[in-house]
Amino acid sequence: MPEVSLELVKRLRADTGIGIMDCKEALTKAGGDLEKAKLILRTEGKEFLASQSREANEGRVEAYIHHSGKVGVLLEVNTSTDFAANSDTFREFVRNLAMQIAAARPRWVSPEHVPPEVLAEEREVQRKQAEKEGKPPHIVDKIVEGRLQKFYEECCLLKQPYVRDPAIKVEDLLADLGVKLGEPVIVRRFVRFEVGEG
Amino acid sequence: MPEVSLELVKRLRADTGIGIMDCKEALTKAGGDLEKAKLILRTEGKEFLASQSREANEGRVEAYIHHSGKVGVLLEVNTSTDFAANSDTFREFVRNLAMQIAAARPRWVSPEHVPPEVLAEEREVQRKQAEKEGKPPHIVDKIVEGRLQKFYEECCLLKQPYVRDPAIKVEDLLADLGVKLGEPVIVRRFVRFEVGEG
Repeated sequence: MPEVSLELVKRLRADTGIGIMDCKEALTKAGGDLEKAKLILRTEGKEFLASQSREANEGRVEAYIHHSGKVGVLLEVNTSTDFAANSDTFREFVRNLAMQIAAARPRWVSPEHVPPEVLAEEREVQRKQAEKEGKPPHIVDKIVEGRLQKFYEECCLLKQPYVRDPAIKVEDLLADLGVKLGEPVIVRRFVRFEVGEG
Repeated sequence: MPEVSLELVKRLRADTGIGIMDCKEALTKAGGDLEKAKLILRTEGKEFLASQSREANEGRVEAYIHHSGKVGVLLEVNTSTDFAANSDTFREFVRNLAMQIAAARPRWVSPEHVPPEVLAEEREVQRKQAEKEGKPPHIVDKIVEGRLQKFYEECCLLKQPYVRDPAIKVEDLLADLGVKLGEPVIVRRFVRFEVGEG
């Protein structure tokens, strides 16, 4: 990936109030596109400075029932305008996302939504495992962080590979859609019920 | 309502391990029908003695999206057998129940699911209101309990009047369906999303 200019990073930071490292990473992912980088930050659940945050209270609720009636998903995705929420592009995206949730069983929208106690437990398990494998102490932390990324890719919707095209992540799809619609697209919440799982 | 025999109440108690008063009430509602009374107790969320409890791990997940796409419901209803879960009678019931939730906005399945802190607050509000209305202290408790029943009828799915026929309650419909299918029908859980409500 190309290096992004410090100028641009500072500009993004000024616009959003978000840390330098996060801004740099988002800009790199966005190929230097400022607006796309903002959308990436937003889809990652980062809080913008209040003045910069555009309200996203429109959108759609979508459901998907697996044909057997044993699995169901309910999903809310928000946009800023009802116009965008009613576009075919948005509707199709929301339908596909509901199917993604049915198939790939994410547990949370993004890493920010993983409860701290779950994260602490996962970290502990990974640490013990790395130690058991005889990894040298000074690289255990790095290994644990690497495996946490895997955990996020499994359990967090935005970090999952998109089931219809595993080469891209759901968060990339979301950022692309935001650019296409010209406004932020926020996955607000979802639930997935499977008969008898409780 | 006719008086039910103590004999029958004791029999129900022996069968289920549930308290005399609850058994009597259920039998009265059920017009003295033992099986129907069991279903009423079950739909109220009462826990049977383990040995008496038939597993209900089958069922269906159903969704309902209001045509505007602004409101959605996801619902799981359980039965003991997949056979019952696939019957037209059951499917129709589950569909209607999903619509009930969209229209009547219950917050919990039954009174047993209302969080204790919500209940305590509601009780307190009703008590203060009754006192403000100048009700004599010795009847305030009774008034509060009466108004709590109203609260349950508003907020608990099973206690709500059925939107398609407000003369009956959802719990009666559920008990009737159980009798018809010959097995318990349990509303396991539901969610209702409305765009922008979060």
